[in-house]
Amino acid sequence: MYDVAIIGTGAAGISAALTLKQLNKNFIWFGSDNLSFKINKAEKIRNYPGLIGVSGEEMRDVFKKQIKEMGIEITNKMVTGVYKGDDKYSILCGNDDAIEAKTVILTTGVLINKPIKGEVEAVGSGVSYCATCDGFLYKDKEIAVYSESKEYDHEVSYLASLASKVYFFCNYKDSNVSNSNVIFMDDKMQEIKPGLKQKTVITKKGEEIKVNGIFILKSSYSPSVLVPGIEELDNHIKVTRKMETNMKGLFAAGDCTGRPYQYAKAVGEGNVAAHSVVEYLALNK
Amino acid sequence: MYDVAIIGTGAAGISAALTLKQLNKNFIWFGSDNLSFKINKAEKIRNYPGLIGVSGEEMRDVFKKQIKEMGIEITNKMVTGVYKGDDKYSILCGNDDAIEAKTVILTTGVLINKPIKGEVEAVGSGVSYCATCDGFLYKDKEIAVYSESKEYDHEVSYLASLASKVYFFCNYKDSNVSNSNVIFMDDKMQEIKPGLKQKTVITKKGEEIKVNGIFILKSSYSPSVLVPGIEELDNHIKVTRKMETNMKGLFAAGDCTGRPYQYAKAVGEGNVAAHSVVEYLALNK
Repeated sequence: MYDVAIIGTGAAGISAALTLKQLNKNFIWFGSDNLSFKINKAEKIRNYPGLIGVSGEEMRDVFKKQIKEMGIEITNKMVTGVYKGDDKYSILCGNDDAIEAKTVILTTGVLINKPIKGEVEAVGSGVSYCATCDGFLYKDKEIAVYSESKEYDHEVSYLASLASKVYFFCNYKDSNVSNSNVIFMDDKMQEIKPGLKQKTVITKKGEEIKVNGIFILKSSYSPSVLVPGIEELDNHIKVTRKMETNMKGLFAAGDCTGRPYQYAKAVGEGNVAAHSVVEYLALNK
Repeated sequence: MYDVAIIGTGAAGISAALTLKQLNKNFIWFGSDNLSFKINKAEKIRNYPGLIGVSGEEMRDVFKKQIKEMGIEITNKMVTGVYKGDDKYSILCGNDDAIEAKTVILTTGVLINKPIKGEVEAVGSGVSYCATCDGFLYKDKEIAVYSESKEYDHEVSYLASLASKVYFFCNYKDSNVSNSNVIFMDDKMQEIKPGLKQKTVITKKGEEIKVNGIFILKSSYSPSVLVPGIEELDNHIKVTRKMETNMKGLFAAGDCTGRPYQYAKAVGEGNVAAHSVVEYLALNK
């Protein structure tokens, strides 16, 4: 069992991981090994102390180098559920075996797009968030895929290499997906209806598409989808000054706890959450 | 009148200043233009995201460069009092004219040493914290000086160039002060007694020294000495998640608000305080 699981590889997660590593804690860190940055190519970041007029990509490169030099590993998996036990948490990534940790730090960012209608209800019964976790279940089957970022192009291609047909709802420009069995939909995914074997996607234009599975590829979830029982405030996770949530042993940091959505704020909260975890572990041996 | 006054040039103040500059706010920033860093020469800082294994001095150099590139000025004065008016604050630096600001961000760090007995009561009547502000008052007079850091050596020398005699209570090793009228005391400054013309320093060994003025040179004060009326909690300034204090328009960030005493935490809070100030100014036009 791990002492800590960090979920998310944005600025808050990075700060928490660096601090836990320095404090020699036994932790697992879930997220993208390319890190999770809202990169705005037009703008330089000028108000992050220590990095002078960098782009988001340059900042990411510095952070990646720092993580590597500290010998920190990222578990490149999408967490699909966090469940509280008596004195530990079970963390699920798709169909993998559950991983256990005494404490959790959520650094899951904010939702850029609202959930699709029916999505929250269909989690676990027809909707998957993790191509590499669940893709093999749909070998030679038909699936629908929604993606909100080009960074998931390789996951779409991977799914297309397994499935017989992919209805692709691509919510960005210049996708590099080129598999011949991928149908680029000139329409929006408006609603999801689960079903025992067959799931239905209803498009904005009113078309009903029957599929065997639905994948939603995006950088973050609604916290209450991910962690049943977590208390929210104004669509963010409610936290104390010590980054405690309403659930004992569960902490949160970064954009998911509220505005301002700033790198400096996220980094500060990740640091505080890591220290609060260490204090919690010492008090709950 | 300024929109904002930032008091303190540690990591929290730097973060607040960078953000206020980016948001085009009209602010004044008080502190040391060599910045205020607790530099520990033995240790590298490894858990500040963006700066990989730097010393405190290297971090300071990066921050100084960034401040310069952003065109931000530091007013190199020690603030000795912050007083609330109806819808503004008056900020005093020794005997200078008061400076007015609609809002204040306190980033004054933590006290490494406790106040000297009688110090808090003697503020404004015999104790000064600012050599360059008040030194000229003691031309050809006798003074006692307490200093907790080598970085104030030049202030001690400056005072010695004015005063006839300096009883120097030097709380560190390897002072470079070499003026012939400076008496290095082999004793501690234990208690201060104010008086109309003559002040008394009582040493640990029980000696009573009569002087015309007393200077205490240290990097930070007790918040309640600096800002009458501010609410404390466990020897720190009590703040909300938005870095609001109990006083309207007065915000605080960094070590002065509590543990962990970490650069990342200070930087995050400075950023949040700056955003809260901007919101406050918009709502209180």
